[in-house]
Amino acid sequence: MKGIQDYYPDHFAHCHGCGRLNENGLQLKTFWDGEETVTRFTPGPHHTAIEGFVYGGLLASIIDCHGTGSAALALARERGIHITEFNAPRCVTASLHVNYKKATPLGPELEVRGIIKEVKSRKVIVEARLIANGQVCVTGEVVAVEVPEDFGKA
Amino acid sequence: MKGIQDYYPDHFAHCHGCGRLNENGLQLKTFWDGEETVTRFTPGPHHTAIEGFVYGGLLASIIDCHGTGSAALALARERGIHITEFNAPRCVTASLHVNYKKATPLGPELEVRGIIKEVKSRKVIVEARLIANGQVCVTGEVVAVEVPEDFGKA
Repeated sequence: MKGIQDYYPDHFAHCHGCGRLNENGLQLKTFWDGEETVTRFTPGPHHTAIEGFVYGGLLASIIDCHGTGSAALALARERGIHITEFNAPRCVTASLHVNYKKATPLGPELEVRGIIKEVKSRKVIVEARLIANGQVCVTGEVVAVEVPEDFGKA
Repeated sequence: MKGIQDYYPDHFAHCHGCGRLNENGLQLKTFWDGEETVTRFTPGPHHTAIEGFVYGGLLASIIDCHGTGSAALALARERGIHITEFNAPRCVTASLHVNYKKATPLGPELEVRGIIKEVKSRKVIVEARLIANGQVCVTGEVVAVEVPEDFGKA
């Protein structure tokens, strides 16, 4: 199953969190699920904070890429873009706020769900909640901004 | 040169960001530098956001562990703890706010500098700025809370 990240142009597809061309990355993928967006990831045994719990930096990373992926989905919907090969909008993060509500257990698959709070020209605000074993462990907010198509292109 | 993280008790030393016992982790280390705290890290070639720039999730991770490390330093100073082997206080992150001011170049060593804004019983607030090539690229704030000594102990 493909995520919006699978439709980023090649030169935008090397992100350590969600780039399909980054072999050493997390390969996160973000989808619509009704009116919400969703990203799922199962941490590895080395993604420890304190033993038995998931590293907060990884949780922030997942929320980060979930935010930019959700923003890309929202912009594509707003503009009526038909997503085919490598024509997805590409956003980067302007700010990331993460609240660690309870320690996230290491082991189960994590689900991040997003709500699009605002779409304003090139800026999208995404609210996120990260769920493990049916409980919300982390909440966050991502302010994402679309980058010009030729940004970072050699 | 040792960081405060080298003095965490063993059962608190497996963090993916800064645990001395996590062989697959980043092994971040935090020191006093006058009245400020400092952590330095050079990202690898796979820590890409868009080619040529550092992944935002990694930057958030570095600020996260810099925050908890700085908080441990601040608590030890506040309490007059003489840091010898494995007796450092251990904090976890309650909230993490990161502002990406400009794209962080991939290549140079990154320096994160911290200012202790508040120490109140078990809670410490740390303000951070991340510098590459002499320029502040990212700013952040970490609210860290000390965990009980037996947290996560088998």
